[in-house]
Amino acid sequence: MAAVKDTPAGNVVLLSGGIGGAKLALGLDRSLSAGALTVIANIGDDFRHLGLAISPDIDTLVYTLADLVNPDTGWGRRDETWHFMAELARLGGETWFRLGDRDLAMHVERTRRLDAGETLATVTRETCQHLGIGSRIVPASDSRVPTRVVTEAGVLAFQDYFVRRRAGPVVSALRFVGADEARPPATAMAALGDPGLRALLIAPSNPWLSIDPMLAIPDLRAALERARVPRVAVSPIVGGQAIKGPTAKLMAELGLPVNQASIARHYRGLIDGLILDHADAGEAAAVEALGIRAVTTATVMHGLEDRVALARFVLDFADTLRRG
Amino acid sequence: MAAVKDTPAGNVVLLSGGIGGAKLALGLDRSLSAGALTVIANIGDDFRHLGLAISPDIDTLVYTLADLVNPDTGWGRRDETWHFMAELARLGGETWFRLGDRDLAMHVERTRRLDAGETLATVTRETCQHLGIGSRIVPASDSRVPTRVVTEAGVLAFQDYFVRRRAGPVVSALRFVGADEARPPATAMAALGDPGLRALLIAPSNPWLSIDPMLAIPDLRAALERARVPRVAVSPIVGGQAIKGPTAKLMAELGLPVNQASIARHYRGLIDGLILDHADAGEAAAVEALGIRAVTTATVMHGLEDRVALARFVLDFADTLRRG
Repeated sequence: MAAVKDTPAGNVVLLSGGIGGAKLALGLDRSLSAGALTVIANIGDDFRHLGLAISPDIDTLVYTLADLVNPDTGWGRRDETWHFMAELARLGGETWFRLGDRDLAMHVERTRRLDAGETLATVTRETCQHLGIGSRIVPASDSRVPTRVVTEAGVLAFQDYFVRRRAGPVVSALRFVGADEARPPATAMAALGDPGLRALLIAPSNPWLSIDPMLAIPDLRAALERARVPRVAVSPIVGGQAIKGPTAKLMAELGLPVNQASIARHYRGLIDGLILDHADAGEAAAVEALGIRAVTTATVMHGLEDRVALARFVLDFADTLRRG
Repeated sequence: MAAVKDTPAGNVVLLSGGIGGAKLALGLDRSLSAGALTVIANIGDDFRHLGLAISPDIDTLVYTLADLVNPDTGWGRRDETWHFMAELARLGGETWFRLGDRDLAMHVERTRRLDAGETLATVTRETCQHLGIGSRIVPASDSRVPTRVVTEAGVLAFQDYFVRRRAGPVVSALRFVGADEARPPATAMAALGDPGLRALLIAPSNPWLSIDPMLAIPDLRAALERARVPRVAVSPIVGGQAIKGPTAKLMAELGLPVNQASIARHYRGLIDGLILDHADAGEAAAVEALGIRAVTTATVMHGLEDRVALARFVLDFADTLRRG
């Protein structure tokens, strides 16, 4: 990290999973000038279902930034209808993974384009254009890097573990199939190597399920390791609990204390600063003892105001690290 | 055709296209004992669209017999919604062929099963079971026999001609690609060879666009040619007009008089009787001059009562031919 004098302009890269990460992405999108944000999206959850190419985290990011997301769930479409699912059930089809009528357009069109030979990065970029999204959303790779969850119930495909089994089975390890050979899209590498880069951020997503599938891609990990700009993560753990999802349960199963030091240790060498919730102010010292700057703010985002406030706090904190 | 003494029991086979044929199929389904009707369905209109396997005539037959069809259009689903299409348009997808939210379940599930190696006959049979249809609906073949329309605008895929261009271009010929090598499913041949067969019927579908793609399959044509049971067609032309669709326009383009003799000549050697509407009573003699028995009734079906009445008339007429 270079000690370069900086103005608050410049581009920002965010590594993000789905719901929680998308909230911060929205705050950043609304705080930065148009086009300044590049979100690199987790693809470990991607799978083929009913023959359709589903990219849950990309879709959550797209719907959130396009202001189309269901505000009650944080994923899927606002004003969604479920006639397709009802009829699929009647035909004896699989219904454990629910696809809304509006949402289906995304999957059918993406599948058609991927099967015609287009890349996931191209399809995602043009989807963002069609929906008027100013920020860039880039998949971590155009190749498939499916997460496999090693559990007491066997090695499970991610959505089998996460949706069908509701993250119930005890997890002992995670595998990111094909990560060693995967390359990030050129747009991701260009954003990471941008001389005008202001900060490199990690969203408050599940570090093991949502961020690690990206860090398992050698070029992405190397880009974080070598970055000469402030690198800041927002902790997904607040008061010993995950804000949403199975992060705390998973940490316990992996034998990790559910605290901020575990998060900091996980990201050691990849971040310069970690943002904690006020509730965890008492753990800041343990994080700093690992050589990572820790600050506290309100990290639980209830509305757009909270998302923008957290985004501004993250950017300000990153800027202080740059000047430091 | 054998002069065997017959009771009105026995199985019936109907060759059918979409809307008009489905109306007669419904009348037969409601008139015959459960399982006595086998509908062999045109597959010339089938195509892949948005990556999905669409079988328009099978679906119209399925929806009609399951009492799910849109009564206003005669195709598609009753109480349909169109959120998928609206979102697809927003994403820049192709919208000239409209797929409703409920209807989509059929296409997605069929595509998944076909791509997994199941046959169209199996998927269609199990679809009928799921929807409580007592009659059998069997595709004319499990292999693809796509219709190509030779027009002034070039050789067009069927749906390009029929839906996208609204049957506008002048037609000079039709091609049924792969028909020579196609075989009917075993269930179709079993129904045609059934010793208990009562009648072999051709629905009031477009002879060139909906029935010919089936007659181009050698085993189906041979089964009609050799049948030893009454073979009866219902004319799709009433008073020099098609009840629905481009039959009359197409006949004119092919240089054929738009009358009952043209229909009879087209089916010569394949039918023993032709049912005309009362409006065309004056043309019966011309049909009979071709060696085909002609009778008249009300063939335009407005409601279920009309469909059942026509079905009973067709069956009664066939029975008289058997006894004749």
